[in-house]
Amino acid sequence: MTIGLQQLLGIELPIIQAPMAGVQGSALAVAVTNAGGLGSLPCAMLSLEDLAKELAVIREQTDKPYNVNFFCHKTPQPDLARESQWRATLTPYYEELGIDASRIQAGPGREPFGPEVLEVLEAFKPPVVSFHFGLPSPELLAPVKAWGAKVLSSATTPEEALWLEAQGVDAIIAQGYEAGGHRGMFLTNDLSAQMGTFALLPQVVQAVSVPVIVAGGIASAQGVAAAMALGAAGVQVGTAYLLCSEANTSAVHRAALKSEAAHHTALTNVFTGRPARSIVNRSVKELGPINSNAPEFPLAVAAMAPLRTAFENKGKGDFSPLWAGQNVSGCREIPAAELTRSLVARQTY
Amino acid sequence: MTIGLQQLLGIELPIIQAPMAGVQGSALAVAVTNAGGLGSLPCAMLSLEDLAKELAVIREQTDKPYNVNFFCHKTPQPDLARESQWRATLTPYYEELGIDASRIQAGPGREPFGPEVLEVLEAFKPPVVSFHFGLPSPELLAPVKAWGAKVLSSATTPEEALWLEAQGVDAIIAQGYEAGGHRGMFLTNDLSAQMGTFALLPQVVQAVSVPVIVAGGIASAQGVAAAMALGAAGVQVGTAYLLCSEANTSAVHRAALKSEAAHHTALTNVFTGRPARSIVNRSVKELGPINSNAPEFPLAVAAMAPLRTAFENKGKGDFSPLWAGQNVSGCREIPAAELTRSLVARQTY
Repeated sequence: MTIGLQQLLGIELPIIQAPMAGVQGSALAVAVTNAGGLGSLPCAMLSLEDLAKELAVIREQTDKPYNVNFFCHKTPQPDLARESQWRATLTPYYEELGIDASRIQAGPGREPFGPEVLEVLEAFKPPVVSFHFGLPSPELLAPVKAWGAKVLSSATTPEEALWLEAQGVDAIIAQGYEAGGHRGMFLTNDLSAQMGTFALLPQVVQAVSVPVIVAGGIASAQGVAAAMALGAAGVQVGTAYLLCSEANTSAVHRAALKSEAAHHTALTNVFTGRPARSIVNRSVKELGPINSNAPEFPLAVAAMAPLRTAFENKGKGDFSPLWAGQNVSGCREIPAAELTRSLVARQTY
Repeated sequence: MTIGLQQLLGIELPIIQAPMAGVQGSALAVAVTNAGGLGSLPCAMLSLEDLAKELAVIREQTDKPYNVNFFCHKTPQPDLARESQWRATLTPYYEELGIDASRIQAGPGREPFGPEVLEVLEAFKPPVVSFHFGLPSPELLAPVKAWGAKVLSSATTPEEALWLEAQGVDAIIAQGYEAGGHRGMFLTNDLSAQMGTFALLPQVVQAVSVPVIVAGGIASAQGVAAAMALGAAGVQVGTAYLLCSEANTSAVHRAALKSEAAHHTALTNVFTGRPARSIVNRSVKELGPINSNAPEFPLAVAAMAPLRTAFENKGKGDFSPLWAGQNVSGCREIPAAELTRSLVARQTY
C-alpha cells in the first residue's frame, strides 16, 4: 500500500485545484487551500516580480500547503518561415479587424521553469511544486526536492507515468483526454495516444507505485467517488472552478462556459502551438482544431494576441483561448471553498 | 427514479456483452447470457440464413434474455471517383503482395437493418434489440417494439441521447471515446465532439430519464463500480471478452491484443470508411488514422479485403481491423462466464 495522498501533501481533502494559467492567481489558490484542498498557483505566465508578489500573498493568507505549477517545455528556436506562414494564415482576420500586422512583435508567451524562477522560489520554499510537459533537468529539480517540496507532474500515457516515476516524482497526475487546457504529453506528439480517463487511470495505477491523482472530466462528488473506485488517490479539478468568484476568468470566457457552446470542446493548437482543450469558437472552427502552420509552442501566441484583444474589445471570444474540459456540468458561480467541499460531500475521508 | 436496468431487461447482472461483429457469434452471447449478463449477437455481417441459424442456436441453448444488434446506417451510393482514388491509395500494397486489383469486386460489407432482417427476427422475437448509428425508420422499429422487444441504441453525445429518448428507446448506451470498434455517432461527423466516458456518462444521465448503460474503458469490477458511481444503470463491456474461448477473435487479433501494440489504439476510418477504434497496425500508421480517400461506410471494406487476407495468410495483422478499446487490461483467456462474474465480484446487486 502506498502512502496516502493527504498525508504526503499535508492536506485534509484529496482535491487539487488544477493550476490554470491566465485565468486565476493566488486568490483561487488560497481559497481552495484554506478549504482543505490543495490550491495551485499557475506560474507559466507570471513575470519573476509577479511570481514573488503572488507567493507573498499566499504565504500571508494561509499557513496550509499549496502548489506552484510550471511548464517545462524546451524554448523553441524561432522559425521565420513558419511564423510567416502563420501570419499569412491569419491575414484575413487582421484585415477584417483593421490590424497592422507589421507591428506585431514575435516572441514567446510562456517561459519554462529555469534558474531565475528557482531563485525566486528558494525564498519561499513552496511545499508542493507541479510540472506540465515533463520535468525540468535534474540540476533544476534537485534544489526543489532539497527544500522538501513534493514534486508532481502530469502523465497522459502509462509510459509517461513510468518515466516520471523513474525521475523521482512524489505523485503522478494522470491527465485524461477529457481535461481542459494543455495536454501534458511529453513523450509523444501523437494525439491518438491520448486516453480517456476511464482507460488511463487504472492503467497508470497499475503501472506505478506512487500515488495517482486523476484529472479530466471530474466535476462532482460522484465523479470523485468514481475516480477513487478506479484507484485514484486524489482528484485534480479545473473546469469546475472557472466560474468561482476567486477566478480571474474573463467575461467572454465566463459567457462561453455558461452557453451551449461549452458542450463542444476540441484539442486545438491554434492558440499556443500545443494541443490544448478549448471550447470551439470561431478561430478553432476556421483555423483548426489542428493547424500545421501554427508555430511551435508557445510561439503561436504572438500572432494571435492582437486578434484576441481586438475581438475581446468588441465583447467577443472568437479568438480567445476558452479553456474548458469536456464536462462543464460542475461549473457554478459559488465561492471556491464551497465548490471544494461539495466535491467530497458524499464521502468521508 | 427510473426503472432498474435488470428489471427492464430481465437480467441478473448489470453487464451487457458488447456486440462485436466479425469476432463473435452465438457462442459468446450464450455464455454471457447463461452467466446472468446480457449476451449479444452482432448481426451486421450475417446473411439472412446465418442470422436465422444463430438465432436458433441461441434459443436452443438458453431461455434467458439476449440481445441482437444491428447497424442502421444509410446504404451509400457508390462513388466511382472516390473508389478509384481509394484503390490508387492502396496500389503500392497490391503490388507488394502481388494482388491483381482488377479482380477486386466493389460492394458493401455491412447491411443495415431492413425489412428482410425484420422478417427473420419476427420468427424469433428476440427480447432485446440494440442498434448502432442511430435507429431504423419508425416503420421498421414499430414491429420490433410490438413483439415486446426492449430497444437500445448508442449515443456519443448528450444530443444523440436526447434524440434517441425522443424516438422511444428503452435504454441508452453512452459510448465513451475509449470504446473499441465503431463510433456510434449519428448526429455529427465531427470526431472532436466525441467525449471520454468520465465526461459523457454524467451528462447523458442528467439529460435523459431512461436507464443509461455505459461503454468505453471499463474492464474490471472497479470500473463497473466507478460507472455506477457516475450514475450508470449498467455497463457494456466488449474488449475484455476478446480473448475468451467463446469469441472467434482471429489469431492475428489475439496476438495483437496480447502484445505491447495493444496499448496504442486510434479512431480510424481505413477499414470500413467510418471512424472505429483499432489497435494501430501498419495500415492505420501508413494510411490513417483518418484517410480522406476512404469511401463512405461500408464501401471502404472491399478494396481492403484482399490485403487483409493476403497479410493474414502470412500470419500478419497489418491490414486487419484489430478492434480494441483503450483499456485492454481486462482481456483474459478465461471462459466468458467467469469474466462476466468477475466484473461484479466486488458488488452485490
